[in-house]
Amino acid sequence: MTILNLAAAEEIIEAAHQRAQLIGKAVSIAVVDAGGFPIAIRRADGARPLTPDIARAKAYTAAIMQRPGKMLKKWQESQPVFFAQLSQLPGAALPIMATEGSVTIKKDGEILGGLGIAGGTADEDQQIAEDVLQSLGYELEFAAWGVTGRPAGKDA
Amino acid sequence: MTILNLAAAEEIIEAAHQRAQLIGKAVSIAVVDAGGFPIAIRRADGARPLTPDIARAKAYTAAIMQRPGKMLKKWQESQPVFFAQLSQLPGAALPIMATEGSVTIKKDGEILGGLGIAGGTADEDQQIAEDVLQSLGYELEFAAWGVTGRPAGKDA
Amino acid sequence: MTILNLAAAEEIIEAAHQRAQLIGKAVSIAVVDAGGFPIAIRRADGARPLTPDIARAKAYTAAIMQRPGKMLKKWQESQPVFFAQLSQLPGAALPIMATEGSVTIKKDGEILGGLGIAGGTADEDQQIAEDVLQSLGYELEFAAWGVTGRPAGKDA
Amino acid sequence: MTILNLAAAEEIIEAAHQRAQLIGKAVSIAVVDAGGFPIAIRRADGARPLTPDIARAKAYTAAIMQRPGKMLKKWQESQPVFFAQLSQLPGAALPIMATEGSVTIKKDGEILGGLGIAGGTADEDQQIAEDVLQSLGYELEFAAWGVTGRPAGKDA
Repeated sequence: MTILNLAAAEEIIEAAHQRAQLIGKAVSIAVVDAGGFPIAIRRADGARPLTPDIARAKAYTAAIMQRPGKMLKKWQESQPVFFAQLSQLPGAALPIMATEGSVTIKKDGEILGGLGIAGGTADEDQQIAEDVLQSLGYELEFAAWGVTGRPAGKDA
Repeated sequence: MTILNLAAAEEIIEAAHQRAQLIGKAVSIAVVDAGGFPIAIRRADGARPLTPDIARAKAYTAAIMQRPGKMLKKWQESQPVFFAQLSQLPGAALPIMATEGSVTIKKDGEILGGLGIAGGTADEDQQIAEDVLQSLGYELEFAAWGVTGRPAGKDA
Repeated sequence: MTILNLAAAEEIIEAAHQRAQLIGKAVSIAVVDAGGFPIAIRRADGARPLTPDIARAKAYTAAIMQRPGKMLKKWQESQPVFFAQLSQLPGAALPIMATEGSVTIKKDGEILGGLGIAGGTADEDQQIAEDVLQSLGYELEFAAWGVTGRPAGKDA
Repeated sequence: MTILNLAAAEEIIEAAHQRAQLIGKAVSIAVVDAGGFPIAIRRADGARPLTPDIARAKAYTAAIMQRPGKMLKKWQESQPVFFAQLSQLPGAALPIMATEGSVTIKKDGEILGGLGIAGGTADEDQQIAEDVLQSLGYELEFAAWGVTGRPAGKDA
């Protein structure tokens, strides 16, 4: 399995930070590994105190659910109670957030982690996350739920 | 960054207490600093046992979300699940309450803390909070969400 | 049952605040009612962010345990595990703190509430609390544990 | 009150990261503001999954307790039960960690935030934190507990 290292995480964070600055938004950015644990978090000057935690929970969701938060919205809408219960499971360390600005980091079909952006509008958070991952060569296509995909790592 | 000191907090609390007395309502009033920590809390005779904590959570919300609870209501209404999850983030010490009677304390464009009122009707709580902050020279205008504002203090 | 009203609570808080100032200490002071709910809390300029909550928990303890925190220390020492479990009981809203600076407010044999002081040394917190309550005519004598005392209110 | 901005936080993190690399340790580093909210967090390649959260809790402790974790150890040792209860107070968002690698960020007598290091030995974490803050011109001297210090900012 390919590991998302600190250099790759900070490259993503720096690119997202610059894009947010360009549109005049103060955002927080988080990158987590495939297990949902933080690699790097950055809060821009002026971003609100809770935004680093929001960004982190979005990144966590995208990593461990292995789908962008935006894709999870349909599931959440069709099964709201069940979806809310996901956040209460023993292995769930943070709220599972089905929302914009939460994108799975994937390369060569492998899930490497999650990127979360918080502080802009929902659309801005989403746009920044997608633009950055695409520009850096990550993949933004994900199979629909319930579809068996290629396993998350190379088989031994 | 200007610090909201005890004298300023008690001036706000006393003014709010008097206004509530004038309309015959027993309310609790809380003032917290910019990080959401209490400076002073007062429960009027006859106000219910949980009202000091409600006032504190309202003040906390207005301080760390850097917007009045009333402004947060639109966000909560459009994304109820996401909004509820804010209160479950590791950095959130108290429930994030998008409601009336929760106003950010701001002067010269700087966020100094939050004021929370609980015990009247929603409209009364809100009116008291706004009247008091306006009469004491605090600012009641806040930019829409996701807009980069002036940083909360001079930079190091 | 006599109720500790806001005026009485603020008289206690003001007296404690002045005594702390005299010895050059920035303390937080909390007064709660017989049920442990806050009546008034005040944090002096320079007192640390958690001190209002520490003062409140000390006041809570003295009110609902109906004994000063200092008296509870012997119980805690002889039964540490049992004592720690008190704080986990369903009716316990805050940690039960067996420590200095936590004194039960009692008059005419009735438990009226609790006073908590935090921010000085243990001895200073205790001294301030006792001096203030004594100077204002409250009673500082409490029967040992397991001794049936006069009920907390006048019987109907 | 001076605000610790992102540039200052990342300068601290980069310096700590380099020192850890020099001694061959993979550490996580967190910098939080005066209210305990994260500004930036970085996990070195090879640092364990929970180390970013340990670093954050250490930084949080140093910021809101306004003293380095190492100074808090004596308090924790003399009152272990009371100290453990601090983490259960309503205003405490994270565990209060009295340990090495947790240093308050202070300049010109003002508390600006906290720095947490996790992943090395206790001594290494502490050494890195102190060396970095000293080399960048921050102050490492703190008054004993219960002494009234200069308020954290100019008063309103």
